[in-house]
Amino acid sequence: MKRIKGLPSRPSGRPGAMARQEFLAFGGALLATVGLTGEAGSDPLPSWNDGAAKQAILEFVRVTTDSSNPKYVAPSQRVATFDQDGTMWVEHPIYTQVVFAFDRVIALAPQHPEWKTTEPFKSVLSGDKAAMAKFTVKDFEAIVFATHTGMSVNAFSAIAADWIGTAKQPRWNHLYTDLVYLPMLEVMRYLRANGYMTYIVTGGGQDFVRAYSDRVYGIPSRQIIGSAVETQYTYGKNGQTVLMRAPKLELNDNMSGKAEDIYLFIGGPPQAAFGNSTGDQQMLEYTQSGGGACLMMLVLHDDAQREYAYGPATGLPDTKVGTFTQALYDEAKARKWSVISMKQDWKRLFAFGS
Amino acid sequence: MKRIKGLPSRPSGRPGAMARQEFLAFGGALLATVGLTGEAGSDPLPSWNDGAAKQAILEFVRVTTDSSNPKYVAPSQRVATFDQDGTMWVEHPIYTQVVFAFDRVIALAPQHPEWKTTEPFKSVLSGDKAAMAKFTVKDFEAIVFATHTGMSVNAFSAIAADWIGTAKQPRWNHLYTDLVYLPMLEVMRYLRANGYMTYIVTGGGQDFVRAYSDRVYGIPSRQIIGSAVETQYTYGKNGQTVLMRAPKLELNDNMSGKAEDIYLFIGGPPQAAFGNSTGDQQMLEYTQSGGGACLMMLVLHDDAQREYAYGPATGLPDTKVGTFTQALYDEAKARKWSVISMKQDWKRLFAFGS
Repeated sequence: MKRIKGLPSRPSGRPGAMARQEFLAFGGALLATVGLTGEAGSDPLPSWNDGAAKQAILEFVRVTTDSSNPKYVAPSQRVATFDQDGTMWVEHPIYTQVVFAFDRVIALAPQHPEWKTTEPFKSVLSGDKAAMAKFTVKDFEAIVFATHTGMSVNAFSAIAADWIGTAKQPRWNHLYTDLVYLPMLEVMRYLRANGYMTYIVTGGGQDFVRAYSDRVYGIPSRQIIGSAVETQYTYGKNGQTVLMRAPKLELNDNMSGKAEDIYLFIGGPPQAAFGNSTGDQQMLEYTQSGGGACLMMLVLHDDAQREYAYGPATGLPDTKVGTFTQALYDEAKARKWSVISMKQDWKRLFAFGS
Repeated sequence: MKRIKGLPSRPSGRPGAMARQEFLAFGGALLATVGLTGEAGSDPLPSWNDGAAKQAILEFVRVTTDSSNPKYVAPSQRVATFDQDGTMWVEHPIYTQVVFAFDRVIALAPQHPEWKTTEPFKSVLSGDKAAMAKFTVKDFEAIVFATHTGMSVNAFSAIAADWIGTAKQPRWNHLYTDLVYLPMLEVMRYLRANGYMTYIVTGGGQDFVRAYSDRVYGIPSRQIIGSAVETQYTYGKNGQTVLMRAPKLELNDNMSGKAEDIYLFIGGPPQAAFGNSTGDQQMLEYTQSGGGACLMMLVLHDDAQREYAYGPATGLPDTKVGTFTQALYDEAKARKWSVISMKQDWKRLFAFGS
């Protein structure tokens, strides 16, 4: 597990791994807390404002880790799943992986002179934003297959890692991975510190996320569930074996696919799930279906000033990217899921800055 | 992780979890060893005879867990995969799951009067062994879809768990799960005690194995990779959500499929892999392709007296069940994979008896 920039290495102790400055700050907070409560501990969710959302997380961990509580969950059963786009990092104005795919079209264009006159590539190469905004699922599939397949799995991983290591989001002029929400990283670390395995369950590409998941989220490849193309086991020229990426969708990890793929990979529902859009509805329902203690949360983007505002109760129209319908909002209320207000619940959004 | 019958709970220490008797026996062995070598430790593989196979396992663990060794493997990267049929338990005269499927045909026959006159069900119901021996892949698929799909995932798991809890193998008159090889359980536990995650990677059904994997192998559902049918997320009569098993193959986890599915689930090759047939060839090749320290082993069934004999160098013809061709044997030698001779390398086969 790598250190995550801007986040104290060990929110609940073990100062050995900390930088000196962090250790001193942590020590001060610790001493202050000890003086008041008589037990060691600091706030594990410092980027969260006090409120129902933060309390729901703390309460969930409290009851599921207390062996005398009827809602106790055995350590071997502790699993939490996190959607990525819009839940773990910024998804507007467009999903990061779509920017990656468009950048790959531009990079590969010299090898494909026919793209200049062939849609959907033509619109990407000419930067025709109006045309790109109207791309269909079939258009995106053509772009994904042209840019994400036809190479070995190792070659693709290297391409994705290179891109994510340098590409910047224009609004903040920061790396896309800097736009991971600090409050959500704190939740991940807090859950792990309490014995939970954390998984990403994304409609985005499994292998795209794997290219940075360990470094950015502290989550290994085996805990990344996502949309995937088929791979084909082949023999190279010298008899060495190569897994090639084929232009055929194997897993569509969105909507019902999230519940189905969680079952495929894990074998049962998680105890906690975090999402932000209709693509996460079934994942949260499936989590709740497990019975016992469970935690279902949806991030609502209602902070136009610090990030973006879309979805119900924002006074703004919904969007195609990260759709949060009124129906989902109503289901959340009916099923007692927690809605996280970015504006109200998050003290701070990113690790960079202040 | 459950206790496995007949195997000491903690082969390398931590007596707190042991039964008293085991603890005393372990303590005695420990003291004897300390006196001779000056370091604590007992034989982690007591059911193995000394020989090249046992040494290969011990050496692999030694070099990959010694941080000063150039072949050291970081704990987060330690993964070992095990085929099931013929590698972890007896696969002759026929795979256990096939017996399960035939038993299910018999159990479900009253609800399907048409089966009396429809193949392949007719042959199963009439006990026509000659006809069953000639079943094609399509015949088996028809039987699997009729017996393994059309119910919820939870219903299937309960059916499989019930069956495996009572059905007995006729030759030994023991539960099928008693026919797990004690030497291989020792390898699994030894690897886990040294930081390796253990996975089952089986051509058999993922969910069939999940019904007993925790109890029998100490392996949780999320570390079972296997052939799988598609599941479909549906809503029940009262709005509750149900994952239904559909009659469509999603993963065929055999041959090349093993390498492809290991990549899908784990994201890269394991460091060690254990198999016994041509269905495991690509898994072992893929393991070796990762470079660095790796261990590839094949179990050869050459013990007609204690179990069965088939495959090369046994003097007996090969079989359709667990095929171990001469070509695979030659590849093993060329690639320096270890071949485990059941007859020579295993002191004891099962936990029952003595």
